[in-house]
Amino acid sequence: MSRDTKITAIRITPIAFRDGPLLNAAGIHEPWALRAIVEFETSDGRVGISETYGDEPMLRVLDQAKALVLGLSPFELNRMEERVRATIRPQPGAIEFELAPGSHTAKNAAKVTSTFEVAMLDLQGQMVGAPVVDLLGGAVRDAVPYSAYLFFKYAEHIDRPYSPDAWGEGISPAQIVAQAQRMIALYGFQSIKLKGGVFEPAHEIACMRALHGAFPGLPLRLDPNANWSLETSIQAAPELDELLEYYEDPTPGLKGMAELARHTRLPLATNMVITTLDDFRKGAEMGSVKVLLSDHHYWGGLRVTQTLARMCALWDLGMSMHSNSHLGISLMAMTHVAASIPNLTYACDTHYPWQEEEVVKGGRIRFEQGSVRVPTTPGLGVELDREKLAELHEQYRSCGVRNRDDLTQMQKYDASFTGQNPRF
Amino acid sequence: MSRDTKITAIRITPIAFRDGPLLNAAGIHEPWALRAIVEFETSDGRVGISETYGDEPMLRVLDQAKALVLGLSPFELNRMEERVRATIRPQPGAIEFELAPGSHTAKNAAKVTSTFEVAMLDLQGQMVGAPVVDLLGGAVRDAVPYSAYLFFKYAEHIDRPYSPDAWGEGISPAQIVAQAQRMIALYGFQSIKLKGGVFEPAHEIACMRALHGAFPGLPLRLDPNANWSLETSIQAAPELDELLEYYEDPTPGLKGMAELARHTRLPLATNMVITTLDDFRKGAEMGSVKVLLSDHHYWGGLRVTQTLARMCALWDLGMSMHSNSHLGISLMAMTHVAASIPNLTYACDTHYPWQEEEVVKGGRIRFEQGSVRVPTTPGLGVELDREKLAELHEQYRSCGVRNRDDLTQMQKYDASFTGQNPRF
Repeated sequence: MSRDTKITAIRITPIAFRDGPLLNAAGIHEPWALRAIVEFETSDGRVGISETYGDEPMLRVLDQAKALVLGLSPFELNRMEERVRATIRPQPGAIEFELAPGSHTAKNAAKVTSTFEVAMLDLQGQMVGAPVVDLLGGAVRDAVPYSAYLFFKYAEHIDRPYSPDAWGEGISPAQIVAQAQRMIALYGFQSIKLKGGVFEPAHEIACMRALHGAFPGLPLRLDPNANWSLETSIQAAPELDELLEYYEDPTPGLKGMAELARHTRLPLATNMVITTLDDFRKGAEMGSVKVLLSDHHYWGGLRVTQTLARMCALWDLGMSMHSNSHLGISLMAMTHVAASIPNLTYACDTHYPWQEEEVVKGGRIRFEQGSVRVPTTPGLGVELDREKLAELHEQYRSCGVRNRDDLTQMQKYDASFTGQNPRF
Repeated sequence: MSRDTKITAIRITPIAFRDGPLLNAAGIHEPWALRAIVEFETSDGRVGISETYGDEPMLRVLDQAKALVLGLSPFELNRMEERVRATIRPQPGAIEFELAPGSHTAKNAAKVTSTFEVAMLDLQGQMVGAPVVDLLGGAVRDAVPYSAYLFFKYAEHIDRPYSPDAWGEGISPAQIVAQAQRMIALYGFQSIKLKGGVFEPAHEIACMRALHGAFPGLPLRLDPNANWSLETSIQAAPELDELLEYYEDPTPGLKGMAELARHTRLPLATNMVITTLDDFRKGAEMGSVKVLLSDHHYWGGLRVTQTLARMCALWDLGMSMHSNSHLGISLMAMTHVAASIPNLTYACDTHYPWQEEEVVKGGRIRFEQGSVRVPTTPGLGVELDREKLAELHEQYRSCGVRNRDDLTQMQKYDASFTGQNPRF
């Protein structure tokens, strides 16, 4: 490789892809999910890629940050990070989606760092002829396990913007079991997560019990997305104690989680009360959360995720991985970093089965027995399909969605829906 | 690069080099300092190098660990670390030197990991044509600042094993100032550290005052090596408050340091009460130490040092670097990792000026204005001089020293010396 190779151009392309009518504590997914596809071009003609949030505040901050890395070598990750930290600020007043830490503008510097780091690591890998994981100290596993991520859902979106998906309605325990059966038949997942906080807790617990009956021995998780009061979370604990491998964010706030910890034998997991390295310091000292769900997109990148993993080992925390709606570039970045972490103690979450479209060559990435094989080809191991990128960008232009807003979408179905939290 | 390149052979060569009659809390340096030079050979004919402790327990554990990495790719740092952690154990009963954390066998896994990581990173750099710092995210500075590391010393060793060094006696304030003047004239250092805990505190404080007078504006440090009682440390604080940039390990134990923190406006620094990632957890929660002196040799490597740096930033700790007697391979490893750390808030310590010999081609590494330039050539940027290595190994064979023992050495000068700690 030549150390003279520099980053000469950055291209940011917002895309929209079809997303199912998936229910959550905040409301319901809109028909179009947004992402930004980022390309770094180098003086020697390579292109490194990355995938991140595609909402308007993120697009603005990415655009502002471009100038900070032009002229750097793809190996100058630390200088990039230093410049981003010094320059990129939160944007008060921007639209934030409380339940999605990736939408918080307080995390702007971490989000930009992460986006740029992945593209630069992809370039490094191409330049040296090694997969990204090799630049993270190498793989400790050859494939990364993901969990079956179930959602309560309607059969189709309001106003039918396009044909309904193949998953059908997912509301009753039987429908949730059928959803899990289909997902496991297709992908082979060996653990199951249900996004909860949607219906009465008794109903969601009944769903977990049905899953437990249908998949004996498979680890199960329930994530009420902080939509249960502390009292409700405590009441549910004895039943869930029998059913779950961990109890994810049932109730809001570190204090609530700490109190709850005294009433359950389950480890409490979070991607809501500890979502930054600063939170880690406070949360770890408190000691009530036992499993962290990392997410390189908002924690600050693949290397920060590795730091977080070492900190989790020190503070005796388990580690798993959070996801939002995403495509294959993010899936590969998650896979590379997860492959490098010895103490990845749980299968990672991924929304990937809910997407049908792709921007990478070769189309959809395959799961084998619920795992993604760690690439052995240079860089991330995926390349952009420019035709698909153009199509998905055209969808972005025409779909009208510019910021994720599950609440307003839900109010189209139910005008009285307030999104009040915790609701139960 | 080829991913098929494997580590095929490991060679560990103990060496001894001349070391001055430097005084410290435990006694006095012996005429010969020990190190181990480690070479990793690969299937494609490269040699990666590393330098670490050369005492007998370390040589034994390195020998035991060799089998764990044979057959790995130089990029498999995480697998190497996992295997070492699973296999390498403390050795109860081994000779440990309380004041030198690098001699603690509880740190065996961290010490082996570090040794192997440096050789593997050297290989990686050679394979991809990049300096080691590029594999650590790139340099945030082009040169790494070191401090002038002063010692109380005798003019020559007992029994005159070889001609005395050029530094002369260093006991009185005037002699210590002269030592600093010589060291700064030779190397250009821009901060000064005195290894204390040797004479009455009033004498050591007088030396600091003399340095302050001779070098107005230059940051000063005093390290009594935990040889002062809490009471003595508190009594000294008001005077030192006027003189120092930090107050390093005056008194033993986290509790003592915590109590002392209430009596000084100086940040307390340590390489004694927080010396492992586990200590960090306890120590950081306590909040009494404000500056950590990292040392990749015993903390667990260059990447762990980077993790430590991120943790220091989170817990609002300053960061500097500790050293033992070492040669150029260690100096370059220190320089690469220090160059990659944005929050290296103080110049690093190094014993390097006290050594005259070298095992690297081109001889002694140069300081410019107190700093070492970060190499831009592949790997560590230094190669073994095999003739010198053979000479220094021959010195090891003939010198008779097998474990560092400053106490017994001191008793040759003063049979009543007990090394009792804290002495003052």
